[in-house]
Amino acid sequence: MTPEPSPTRPVRVALLGAGVVGGAVARLLTEHADDMRARVGGSLEIVGIAVRRAGRDRSDLGLDPSLFTTDADELVTRADVVVEVIGGIEPARSLILRAMEHGASVVTANKALLAEDGPTLYDAAAEHGVDLYYEAAVAGAIPLLRPLRESLAGDEVRTVLGIVNGTTNYVLDKMDTTGAGFADAVEQAQALGYAEADPTADVEGFDAAAKAAILASLAFHTRVSGVDVHREGITEVTAADIAAAREMDCVVKLLAICERTDAGVSVRVHPAMIPRSHPLAGVREAFNAVFVEADAAGQLMFYGRGAGGDPTASAVLGDIVAVARHRVGGGLGPGESTYADLPVLEMGQAVTRYHISLDVEDRSGVLAQVAAAFAEHDVSIETVRQQLVPGTASQSARANLIIVTHTATDAALSSTVERLRTLDVVRGVNSLMRVEGS
Amino acid sequence: MTPEPSPTRPVRVALLGAGVVGGAVARLLTEHADDMRARVGGSLEIVGIAVRRAGRDRSDLGLDPSLFTTDADELVTRADVVVEVIGGIEPARSLILRAMEHGASVVTANKALLAEDGPTLYDAAAEHGVDLYYEAAVAGAIPLLRPLRESLAGDEVRTVLGIVNGTTNYVLDKMDTTGAGFADAVEQAQALGYAEADPTADVEGFDAAAKAAILASLAFHTRVSGVDVHREGITEVTAADIAAAREMDCVVKLLAICERTDAGVSVRVHPAMIPRSHPLAGVREAFNAVFVEADAAGQLMFYGRGAGGDPTASAVLGDIVAVARHRVGGGLGPGESTYADLPVLEMGQAVTRYHISLDVEDRSGVLAQVAAAFAEHDVSIETVRQQLVPGTASQSARANLIIVTHTATDAALSSTVERLRTLDVVRGVNSLMRVEGS
Repeated sequence: MTPEPSPTRPVRVALLGAGVVGGAVARLLTEHADDMRARVGGSLEIVGIAVRRAGRDRSDLGLDPSLFTTDADELVTRADVVVEVIGGIEPARSLILRAMEHGASVVTANKALLAEDGPTLYDAAAEHGVDLYYEAAVAGAIPLLRPLRESLAGDEVRTVLGIVNGTTNYVLDKMDTTGAGFADAVEQAQALGYAEADPTADVEGFDAAAKAAILASLAFHTRVSGVDVHREGITEVTAADIAAAREMDCVVKLLAICERTDAGVSVRVHPAMIPRSHPLAGVREAFNAVFVEADAAGQLMFYGRGAGGDPTASAVLGDIVAVARHRVGGGLGPGESTYADLPVLEMGQAVTRYHISLDVEDRSGVLAQVAAAFAEHDVSIETVRQQLVPGTASQSARANLIIVTHTATDAALSSTVERLRTLDVVRGVNSLMRVEGS
Repeated sequence: MTPEPSPTRPVRVALLGAGVVGGAVARLLTEHADDMRARVGGSLEIVGIAVRRAGRDRSDLGLDPSLFTTDADELVTRADVVVEVIGGIEPARSLILRAMEHGASVVTANKALLAEDGPTLYDAAAEHGVDLYYEAAVAGAIPLLRPLRESLAGDEVRTVLGIVNGTTNYVLDKMDTTGAGFADAVEQAQALGYAEADPTADVEGFDAAAKAAILASLAFHTRVSGVDVHREGITEVTAADIAAAREMDCVVKLLAICERTDAGVSVRVHPAMIPRSHPLAGVREAFNAVFVEADAAGQLMFYGRGAGGDPTASAVLGDIVAVARHRVGGGLGPGESTYADLPVLEMGQAVTRYHISLDVEDRSGVLAQVAAAFAEHDVSIETVRQQLVPGTASQSARANLIIVTHTATDAALSSTVERLRTLDVVRGVNSLMRVEGS
């Protein structure tokens, strides 16, 4: 019998699937091996990657070709952690159950399977005393299941409102911002790769309904299947609906709604108007977000990318670390692992942009002098706007110069401002502020 | 020697401090005892509550008066989990270190201590093999530290931009929305309890700087102290700055910024303009939010209440569950604990609001007939708006009736709409949509 993983014996990881997500997981596991070892408290070793057909051995990943196998049934019997990124119901379900029977913990991104038959998997994990983690199954990269399960463990969740399907959010956002009709917006989404050639699973709400079932199960610690979820898609949403919402100062979103009432839980997916002041209203393009109301914590929202190879792989990796850490016997706080001890930079070394409003004389040559002060310090100007100050005609004419810089070090920017203050043509600095987040 | 906690021997919890947060923690621990036991895999028992002076025994909490003690030094030696909500540097630090020496895991909300001397605590936790959790220390109820530490464990965080101080966000938000000056906005914040009588720690950025140090330490897995953080407050922000930001289609926020560059980490707190399209720009009033950019996960944001007794207590409880679960030997996924098995309601039982746009004849009595259809089904109308349809003068005159209901069951609402469709005066239903999130 193989000994338990330990600081000396690596944690054996088996990957089922080497598609977009599986490939990204394999790559990140290799690239971040040192960091993962520090966080797990022991090293991880990929012991095999199951592919559907021989020859599909993704040589682009730079892995030993002997790792690839078509015998997934055998592979899952010799791993500590099985990562299932095949998708679909079968053979994913059988492989997961087989892995658990052989004592492996499982990380999966399979929302369809969890929505259809989650309880079978949860029960099998409990029976065999192994972990089952599935952060990537809902809202891709957004850490959501762990907060719901752990951080709010001492609280009571009342409501979950989620934008959990990027395609439909992109379509509704385009309809709102450009006035496009449904069909045109879907075409745009397809052109940009945000919608499949056959967008049914997204626009009819099937994808969102599966995620709603998983969210409700976790939020209320109860069992909800995909079939329990009332589902309406967005195909009936018209430009007139969007316009009506706008008149109400609302925006239309496809929402996954999970509510806990005295009578039970309500789980549904349908388009709905929400006020523009609501945090979910600002979720644009293909982003996802989940809004939670809990008794003690109050209102919370989690926002991020809901799909894509790398975001999904990031969530899978977080789960692998958690599961592997349990295997090694860890589970400690942040104190256990080695620190990077990165140098902390001085403020002058920070790279930022400045918005500067100057009170200047309105005469020729002013702009040249000001521009020279920036050039002296190698600070590049993005925009300059000049505003005449009204009511200064009788005195010497004055103007405001509003300058936004490109990024530069804070030291260069602050030296530039020092220099500007010494110029005769500059009467004063009205406003000076850094610009971030762009 | 006391045996380890187990499904039969409860996990002993000691509370240091019985103020607003401590009181809420004690109350929630009692109220949610069953749920906590299910999630921990064993019961929790409050073995003592340390108060500063005898007689401060919070009889309002309904706890056994003999639990209150002024001897915190003794209390920490007989607990599995010590919850420190006293705040400040001493005696909090000594008590935490003493608790760890005696083998207790520690949950703390003490940002000042973590920012000043976090590494001492992290090292002590590692040395004694105990947990140190501090979710409540940054951004109150928002589950943030656990996602940064665990969910993104296989990823690389590049940037953290945080609105981590509710007082300053409230002040800047009021300046933006009402055009108020700094002093007036601070007065409003004080009147509403969002700012202290002496707001220095908030408006000068000291509070945000402590949180920035903790965030940077976690995000980059390195050691940053409060003194490493460049700090500028918002006292110099003028109405002119806010107006300048508005002209740039930006908003001014006090940001805690943590950046990882090739040269090292930059950690700073200062007011900055951010574009109104940025997710942080929509963070209003006293809410907090932290925006994270990671290599694989991309952009993430976490939003919620940053302060307050109950939100902070919610975060503390989540930590207690995590720490206690390790004690009991758990650490399993969601499969391990008992399920609530709540009934799943039919869609008809869901409670929601409708927005209905009707195409109606424009003649007297129409509104009465429409209103009667709602009354028949006990659906209460919130607003009705009538719009004449232009260009229908030559035909029989038509109008749009736009009706928004109060909440009712979906069954009642949908029966109402069925009834409306049968009315002679109703030519059609232009648009029908549920309204959520208000």
